[in-house]
Order: sequence, then C-alpha cells, then structure tokens
Amino acid sequence: MGGDLGPRSVVPACVRALEKFPSLELTLFGDPAEISAELHSSHHARLTLVECESHVTQEDAPAFALRHKRDSSMGCALQALADGRVDGMVSGGNTGALMALSCHFVGKVNGVRRPAIGKSLPTETGSCFLLDLGANIGVCAEDLLQFARMGVEAQKLYTDQRPLKVALLNIGSEAHKGTEEIRRAAELFREAPDIEYYGFIEGHDLFTGCVDVVVCDGMLGNIAMKSAEGVIRLMGQKVFRFDQKNAFKSFFGQMAIKLLRKWRSQLEPARYNGASFLGLSGNVIKSHGGASSAAFFQAIVTAVHCAEADLAGRVDRALS
Amino acid sequence: MGGDLGPRSVVPACVRALEKFPSLELTLFGDPAEISAELHSSHHARLTLVECESHVTQEDAPAFALRHKRDSSMGCALQALADGRVDGMVSGGNTGALMALSCHFVGKVNGVRRPAIGKSLPTETGSCFLLDLGANIGVCAEDLLQFARMGVEAQKLYTDQRPLKVALLNIGSEAHKGTEEIRRAAELFREAPDIEYYGFIEGHDLFTGCVDVVVCDGMLGNIAMKSAEGVIRLMGQKVFRFDQKNAFKSFFGQMAIKLLRKWRSQLEPARYNGASFLGLSGNVIKSHGGASSAAFFQAIVTAVHCAEADLAGRVDRALS
Repeated sequence: MGGDLGPRSVVPACVRALEKFPSLELTLFGDPAEISAELHSSHHARLTLVECESHVTQEDAPAFALRHKRDSSMGCALQALADGRVDGMVSGGNTGALMALSCHFVGKVNGVRRPAIGKSLPTETGSCFLLDLGANIGVCAEDLLQFARMGVEAQKLYTDQRPLKVALLNIGSEAHKGTEEIRRAAELFREAPDIEYYGFIEGHDLFTGCVDVVVCDGMLGNIAMKSAEGVIRLMGQKVFRFDQKNAFKSFFGQMAIKLLRKWRSQLEPARYNGASFLGLSGNVIKSHGGASSAAFFQAIVTAVHCAEADLAGRVDRALS
Repeated sequence: MGGDLGPRSVVPACVRALEKFPSLELTLFGDPAEISAELHSSHHARLTLVECESHVTQEDAPAFALRHKRDSSMGCALQALADGRVDGMVSGGNTGALMALSCHFVGKVNGVRRPAIGKSLPTETGSCFLLDLGANIGVCAEDLLQFARMGVEAQKLYTDQRPLKVALLNIGSEAHKGTEEIRRAAELFREAPDIEYYGFIEGHDLFTGCVDVVVCDGMLGNIAMKSAEGVIRLMGQKVFRFDQKNAFKSFFGQMAIKLLRKWRSQLEPARYNGASFLGLSGNVIKSHGGASSAAFFQAIVTAVHCAEADLAGRVDRALS
C-alpha cells in the first residue's frame, strides 16, 4: 500500500484527512500490522483496515498485475469501489497496473474509448486541466476529442467560468504544425458544438491561464508536467543552497528566505498532488509514487472533491 | 531580420557583442535603413550591413521558404556561412524555414540522417544538453543514436567531465515504458561503444544533473523545454503580483523579492537563449523568436562559442 514510502507517508495523511473532513470514512487496504505501527496506537472510529494477500510492485507490467495481482491491496480497493462500498479510491502505486486493474474492476464509462489521466495545474490566473498524463501513448484524433470532453467536466470542479476554453498542446501555434493526428483533432474540435476550441498552444502557454483545459497524447502530457515539476524542484534546491552558502547569515536574510519558501510552496507539486483517472465508472485518484505525507493528503483531498461532485457520473453523462 | 522584435532587439545585442568580443566581426542581413535607425548614427568598424530583397515570415511553411525565399535575409546569411565568409549564423526567425534553408545552403554533414536542434539547460549541478527541440517529429531509434553523438559533442563545450552520460527521455524509467522506437533506441545506446548510456529518465530528471545529454523526439523535447520555461515565467509573474499586492511593504518583503529576482535570473530563458542546429556543415544558432535584446545577445555569445570551438566540424568528425 501507498507508493514508494508506504504507510509511513499514507497513514499520517489519512489521520489528517479524517480531522479535516468530519464525515469522511477511510478504508486502508494493506498489511494491518504495518499500518497500525504508523497509527501509534491512536484509535480512529472512521478508519477501517482490510488485510490483503499481496501488493503490486513498481516493476509489475500491467498485464502481469491483471493476471496475478487481482487480490493485491490495489485490486481489493478497486473491488470495494466497484461494489459501491467506497466512493473514491486513492493509490500511490504503479500507474499502468492501476489503470489496468481499474478497467477490470471498475470498468469504463459507456462509449469511452480510452480512459485518461488528468490534473489541474496552477496558472497565472487560476488553474488549467491537463490530460492525458501518461495512460495513453499514440492516441488518435477521436481519443483527443473524448479527452477534451472529460477534461472539461473535471475542470468544472476548479472554476466557475463557462464555457471552458480547450486547447491542443502542440509544437507551435500555426495550423501546419504537429502530427497528422493533432491537426485532424483540431478539425474535430472546431466542429464539436460542445467544445469551446481555442487552438494549438505551446508548452509555455500551459501556465499563462489562456485556456482552461489542455489536451494531448499521454507521452507529451507526462513530459510537460514532469519537466515543469522538475524546474520547481530545481528552484527549491537553489534556494536551499543559497541558504547554506550565505555567509551573511543575517536576521534579514533568514526572513527573506522564509518568505521565499512560503511563496515557493504555492507552486510545489505536493500542493497539486492527485491526478484523476477519467472515463471510469468510479473515482480513482493517483498520487505521486514518492509523495510525502503532505502530498498524499492533497491526493485524498482531491478524491474527496471528486467523490462529492460525482465526477465519474458527470463524465458518464457528458459522454453518453 | 531578427524574429518578432526585429532590429530593435537585434541591433543593441550586436553592439554589446562587439564590445564584449574585440575580435568579433558581425554582418547583418536585412533592411539597412531599419538597422541604421537602431544604430543611432554610431559607427562600428566591425559591423557590416547587407541589403536583402525579402524576409521569411513566421507563416511561411518550410517548403514555401525553400521555393520562394532563397534571397531573403535568412537565405543570404546562410549563403555567406556556406561560402565561408562568416563562421556562424544566428537567426530569431521561423525555425522550420531556417532548418530547410540551412540544409539547402549549408548542407548536412556526411552520414547525418536528420539534423537536430539542441540546447544546454541549467541543472542543480551544472548543465545538460537536450535534443531534439523540434526539428524532427517521429524519429526512429537510429536517428536518436545520431542525436546522442551530436549532443555529446555539443555538451563538451559546457563541461570538462568525461565521459558524458547520455539518457533517453521517457514516460518512466522502467525498461518496458515508452514507444517501441524509444525501447529500440535503448538497445542501440547500450551496444554503442562510444556512448556512456545511463538509461531512461523522466521529465523531472532533466534538471537534477544526473546526466549530461538527454535525447528525445523533437515533439517531446520542444514540449519539455517550453513547459519548463513556462514555469519560470509563471514564477516571475507570481513575484510581480506578490510585489504589487504586498500591503505590508516591509524591508523583508523587498529583500525577499530582490533575492528571488536575482536567483530567478539564473534560470531565465534569456540566459540560455541560443539553440544549436547540429548535423550541418556550419554553425547555425536559433534564438527565441520573441527574444529581448539581452536574450539575443546570449544567442550571439552561443554562436561565438560554437564557432570558436568549431562545433560543426566536431560533429562531422564524430559522425564519420
């Protein structure tokens, strides 16, 4: 259970979430002994532990997980979601296996060709929903149109603005740029009556707030999001080193660094942890594998919001 | 001449470059009247103006430029490079047209399948050369291997470390991740005696300094670089707004902003302006289209370094 850091990161995040949401009930699937150790003997009436036989590893290929890991903590949690015993499921585990097992247990929404992974990212003016983040490599124009519709439903949770502007991520904004599928998708988007199509945007436009939803192949979305996160981390490192090396360790310098840190935290990946699997008949949320407890808490918050808004149901209605 | 801002950005950058490099001689191709207006009647013995009939626009498709814009400022400058009248060429214009005209006038190095565009990016420990940044969409494993060899030669200009570690940009670090061509490239890299192959890296690893050269398809490289730049700009905007809104305009706040600005300038795209076209028989450097004068100056500096180090010749020898 729980990605690279396991219960050490997940359990404190759960305790914090139970405190924040008084009507939240959590079920943890995994090794009860390991989980209990992290609970430090404190008792939570709204926390249930379910023992599972095995767990999915980062090395398990999706097909392997589907054949041999159905009784894993991941599989049991998804079964609970499919049965309606829970309203949302959060995992920090292997993304490919999570998608394969989600399709198996929870199932795809009627008419969805390929479920996608998406996330709301910070922009200059608010936020922007980017998908696909890695579930699909080599998508066609029709897939991209479905991603657009799913992304619009998801971004409605983050903004009251209507209609939501949708763009295609490309190598340039001119009409002749990109692959044939991207250019064909542009035609489909332009003709779709329910899509407010903005045009092609480039990587740097993701953060200007010019659009509300950005659609792309999973390979591109994954690289775009992770490159952006890499720069934010680089920023953290630079600030830290500056702190260490600063010979003039004055009170003023310390205060300034404190402000810098506070500011940086507004952009930190941890604040935006929790990607939604869209196109499934249930709310599945993927946390970063290496998420800290604070970041995993954010993924739970995302799951609560998606479940409360019935995001899976909204996507179902929008696509059928 | 000169990208979106034209002589207004280029001419002051040239004057600054002539001051920095006492043995530099510059030839400007474009409209002498426009250029002279920006020179403000000051005279530079090492600056030559060449009048050109036309110029390439951002809308010109590469094939159109090749047919109808050979006598443009871009075409004339590349002809001068091909003739050996200049040692390097810098342009802020249409990237596709620049590559097409470069291949026509300057020509590809013997054995190069597809020239690539690459750039050295800042990392936690130094820099990392990323290519291709958009010249090639839909590359095969053999192309990626050539990119790796070209990238190693280019990055040698930025670090004394040997051997240089090379990675493939992918959606995950596990062996089964990514497209078939990326996985096939990994096999070629592993078998190549002249490549110190590190493995797959993800977007966030670009900035950790774990490798010296990162190779990918032009679509991915373009999105990775521009997303990273977008975040850096977002950072600038946030700082600006923080500055404006900060009611408590304290000494600490001012100091924090000053520190952050200073730090941000280390990462600013302007500091890293100037991408190299690799695999051509001459040094062609591409500046950002919207480059400020300070950024265009950096592109000239990159061109001077590439020309002095004979980068085009190094790539030629490495690939033949």
